Amino acid sequence: MTMTQEQLAVSVAIASWKNTVGRADKIFSVFTEEQFLREVVPGKNRIIYLLGHLTTVHDAMHTILGLGERLHPELDAIFVTQPDGAIETLPAVSDLMKHWTEVNSSLFEKFASLSPKEWLQRHMAMSDEDYAKDPTRNRLNVLLSRTNHLSYHLGQIILAPK
Amino acid sequence: MTMTQEQLAVSVAIASWKNTVGRADKIFSVFTEEQFLREVVPGKNRIIYLLGHLTTVHDAMHTILGLGERLHPELDAIFVTQPDGAIETLPAVSDLMKHWTEVNSSLFEKFASLSPKEWLQRHMAMSDEDYAKDPTRNRLNVLLSRTNHLSYHLGQIILAPK
Repeated sequence: MTMTQEQLAVSVAIASWKNTVGRADKIFSVFTEEQFLREVVPGKNRIIYLLGHLTTVHDAMHTILGLGERLHPELDAIFVTQPDGAIETLPAVSDLMKHWTEVNSSLFEKFASLSPKEWLQRHMAMSDEDYAKDPTRNRLNVLLSRTNHLSYHLGQIILAPK
Repeated sequence: MTMTQEQLAVSVAIASWKNTVGRADKIFSVFTEEQFLREVVPGKNRIIYLLGHLTTVHDAMHTILGLGERLHPELDAIFVTQPDGAIETLPAVSDLMKHWTEVNSSLFEKFASLSPKEWLQRHMAMSDEDYAKDPTRNRLNVLLSRTNHLSYHLGQIILAPK
């Protein structure tokens, strides 16, 4: 298999995203329903909230990367614009886990449809002018930033009492 | 300024690393000496340990990326091979902060000496055979992996009681 240099660079970034999502899958898979309701640290986010938050932020990547409609826009009002505790009844863990898996599968499938050149083009929240000023604000940048966002919250989730 | 596609891809990854190190600098800069000695969560790593751990792991990037000798190999035995609490007296916070800044500056300077092609070549902990099997195990992969490692621990550090 011969890859161009830019194909290789993009593959490394997608592999890093996939690997981090896989770590999250493993971590979530061992929690009981009751453990999902625990706070990672007293007074901070519950794991169920972080699961919903990560699902919603990943789902929004469909829009920002220009990969079609997001699957669950209704989650925004629960897990992004509101902090944990503001909404009395959260969706069931089993539904959120279904959304989490579905959103990440959809993204991963659509990532393959982008050429390396498209990964290096501006993302959808950037104007042409801003992009001309800073060409690193492209789709690849969004992918790395969301991978780091996931790692950040995984570091927290792992601290929750078992 | 015109960049090739692979230059652009590598720049995005270096910018993501730099941005995450910058976030860490900001977080560390507001801690008092006393706060550095707090555990992020009762029974887990102290912030001073995570500062030393991150410094040591970053320092080792010199070796794995083939960028010359690491600056503080003596930290390995304190912050990587031993967990927090195993070593009675840790180095002073002020020394660790100096090392942290020095290590990251050295790395950032040396990153600029690598061509995009070199970023996409195998890293130093890989044999030629293993690399032939998986060409994504290159320097860029190490950079992304260390950026995620930093984000993971930043997510924890931010939870420490103020």
